[in-house]
Amino acid sequence: MSDRKAILVIGAGDATGGAIARRFAREGYIACVTRRTADKLQPLVEQIRADGGEAHAFGSDARKEEAMVSLVETIERDIAPIEVAVFNIGANVRFSITETTARVYHKVWEMACFSGFLMGRETAKVMLPRGRGTIIFTGATASVRGREGFAAFAGAKHALRALAQSMARELWPKNIHVAHTVIDGSIDTEWIRTNFPESYAKKDRQGILSPDSIAEAYWQIHRQPRDAWSHETELRPWMESW
Amino acid sequence: MSDRKAILVIGAGDATGGAIARRFAREGYIACVTRRTADKLQPLVEQIRADGGEAHAFGSDARKEEAMVSLVETIERDIAPIEVAVFNIGANVRFSITETTARVYHKVWEMACFSGFLMGRETAKVMLPRGRGTIIFTGATASVRGREGFAAFAGAKHALRALAQSMARELWPKNIHVAHTVIDGSIDTEWIRTNFPESYAKKDRQGILSPDSIAEAYWQIHRQPRDAWSHETELRPWMESW
Amino acid sequence: MSDRKAILVIGAGDATGGAIARRFAREGYIACVTRRTADKLQPLVEQIRADGGEAHAFGSDARKEEAMVSLVETIERDIAPIEVAVFNIGANVRFSITETTARVYHKVWEMACFSGFLMGRETAKVMLPRGRGTIIFTGATASVRGREGFAAFAGAKHALRALAQSMARELWPKNIHVAHTVIDGSIDTEWIRTNFPESYAKKDRQGILSPDSIAEAYWQIHRQPRDAWSHETELRPWMESW
Amino acid sequence: MSDRKAILVIGAGDATGGAIARRFAREGYIACVTRRTADKLQPLVEQIRADGGEAHAFGSDARKEEAMVSLVETIERDIAPIEVAVFNIGANVRFSITETTARVYHKVWEMACFSGFLMGRETAKVMLPRGRGTIIFTGATASVRGREGFAAFAGAKHALRALAQSMARELWPKNIHVAHTVIDGSIDTEWIRTNFPESYAKKDRQGILSPDSIAEAYWQIHRQPRDAWSHETELRPWMESW
Repeated sequence: MSDRKAILVIGAGDATGGAIARRFAREGYIACVTRRTADKLQPLVEQIRADGGEAHAFGSDARKEEAMVSLVETIERDIAPIEVAVFNIGANVRFSITETTARVYHKVWEMACFSGFLMGRETAKVMLPRGRGTIIFTGATASVRGREGFAAFAGAKHALRALAQSMARELWPKNIHVAHTVIDGSIDTEWIRTNFPESYAKKDRQGILSPDSIAEAYWQIHRQPRDAWSHETELRPWMESW
Repeated sequence: MSDRKAILVIGAGDATGGAIARRFAREGYIACVTRRTADKLQPLVEQIRADGGEAHAFGSDARKEEAMVSLVETIERDIAPIEVAVFNIGANVRFSITETTARVYHKVWEMACFSGFLMGRETAKVMLPRGRGTIIFTGATASVRGREGFAAFAGAKHALRALAQSMARELWPKNIHVAHTVIDGSIDTEWIRTNFPESYAKKDRQGILSPDSIAEAYWQIHRQPRDAWSHETELRPWMESW
Repeated sequence: MSDRKAILVIGAGDATGGAIARRFAREGYIACVTRRTADKLQPLVEQIRADGGEAHAFGSDARKEEAMVSLVETIERDIAPIEVAVFNIGANVRFSITETTARVYHKVWEMACFSGFLMGRETAKVMLPRGRGTIIFTGATASVRGREGFAAFAGAKHALRALAQSMARELWPKNIHVAHTVIDGSIDTEWIRTNFPESYAKKDRQGILSPDSIAEAYWQIHRQPRDAWSHETELRPWMESW
Repeated sequence: MSDRKAILVIGAGDATGGAIARRFAREGYIACVTRRTADKLQPLVEQIRADGGEAHAFGSDARKEEAMVSLVETIERDIAPIEVAVFNIGANVRFSITETTARVYHKVWEMACFSGFLMGRETAKVMLPRGRGTIIFTGATASVRGREGFAAFAGAKHALRALAQSMARELWPKNIHVAHTVIDGSIDTEWIRTNFPESYAKKDRQGILSPDSIAEAYWQIHRQPRDAWSHETELRPWMESW
């Protein structure tokens, strides 16, 4: 039992979270994947199992404190110690400032930032006594730059980055590797395929980020030796202008 | 009536907000100052009046959408057009990540960021049809850097900065000057005097920011000609290390 | 004699340097203006004198150490103590990396950076014993971001910014205000008028920076009280996208 | 012959450059290593050969254009196409601004920046027709922040970073991966061992960067798939405060 170790991926409903879970499962990590409702995670769980890995799906509302507390407790008690935690919930919306409702502004922050705080805090709590662990927050260009129409989304992403930085400065010296990524470009997902066919058309020339490439980067961050850790890693396609 | 113009200062309960109100009142702006309860604003209002200015105090919870909507409506209808809006609510708390409660994390964001969103949106709404105005958000070092113990405060401040940037990119081309300050250092307040006597002791050598100096900087930002606007202005004492 | 104080403007051949000299001359500073050959500075000197100010033109190659040493010595001995020094030499060239010759790369650095180092060091030397002074370096967007075609120019500008930052951290606690500006946008000059008529056409709508507005910003930086100094100030037209 | 590929490491005299050469040699790259005089490189060459790799040492003054041109030509003609180029020359000196001589300021720039420009340009020239390659520049904390005493060093490092950014924006769309690292912390070298015994004492607890860990990071940058490239990678020990 002592060798078992889990990766928790909050927000595994999209292609990126799924690819990260698969990548770590391939290395022997037990993938604990969540989204609001568990049933949509079945194909991912089956795929990991078919590849010889172990996976568990959880329906859990990441914005609810009790749900996050209970999720982490359940995994630690029934499955395995959480060695790696990945926060991967986005909430990309676009509204002019005068058309941004208080409800939208609050909701985007709850999904893309507050949930990250809950995951970060709860997993830090179980990692600290073990003096070991990796916590990665997924960011975007909006994490580092505000833009017309993105007051809500950039606000949540900036706050998540501040969380990652604050946690890193506190937890690195306790041997917990807190990292943040800045994904700059479209990711190859069903949603992009449908809504942005021009972006998707760059796929043949690798002009769109593949979830597997992102997953590989997360794996490399996790396996960095602690004398040379990265905090922030930016990833963008070779064709992307920036 | 056409010459009358107001400055709205949200969070005028501290020394900085008060100094800003006084500085603009000296230039003929009608100071509309708020904090949660209006009565504590009376000394400020009286001081402005004694100096020959006009001032109005409002008790208003900046975190409540209806309160902000009604505040802006009242001033526009009964007092004067809001030419300048300043957001000045802080919420500097320090907790390790595991000791940051969900309540604190949420509350700090509500006070230091969500209120700013409400003020920014509501004042933008009245400025846009006039094609004119200045909106300034007060930031701090935590706006640009996370730090151990500051997950909540830095999160709110980063999000506020993202709001200011997003609004600037949208509203500058509509002749509304959105700006953000980064105040880096202690400010000469009652609170610092009491809690950080060593910081306060630097006052004689001007090693602590005077609210009047900050107010002067805000006035200068407001009067910049539009062919040479600043978005972000950092202010720190000459003795401060950074 | 004790009230006399000089401003040294290195690179006053263009509109910006000239406007800065005029602005400070209006406040009683003796304008000491330089460019490679002094004769082209005569119109500026005459204009300042016609406005009731005092001005002196120097032909001086800012890239030559002995020339800079001698310039500062001459002003200090024969004219007045240098209270303010402004570095304003640009060298905006654009070449793809493979077409950037070693000569161009070196020359751009010499003009836009090494000269700034010489001015900064020599004026710091005379200001330090007096414990007083302001040194401002003019930057551009290329100071903070590299871009295709700008390896040489961005290199020099980044290095100048590093100089300004390093000097600020060393000299602020000695009461010398070292500042850096980031001018983001076209400036209204003869050169823009001729080469970029579309940029120039924005002038009526103040979509192009006026040298006088930049000069005003420099004046405001200089007169900041030392409890609230800015190090970096960005200036851009309201219409500029960023 | 078609499978043969070289890595060029400019500045392989220190531990980091040597470790990078060894890491890539282990993957089949022919290590072409340089420093001012070739003889000191013999132990490195022998070590790589003993491990079954191929290595060639060159004495070459990286600051001389003809030397760099000839070096790249020689390798391309006699050894193998340069697939990877790494610039690794530092020049960390510390002087107060008034004690920084023009000679030191110029020299530090020549070593730590101008040489990098020459390497970058010459290797880009041979990579462009092949539409393939990786160019990595080694940076430091001084690449992103000026500091008291570091006007010369930070200037060169900032300029090198501007070069890397400008080259990346130009060459990424041509399938050449230009990257920059920010090494933040002491590296385990003979020099640190001798001059900073307290830094060195952290070695047991991995509080000092190991050249092998840095080399591994460079290898990972090189093998990133082009749909998810990093431009800037920061590396620092878990114990380092930042």
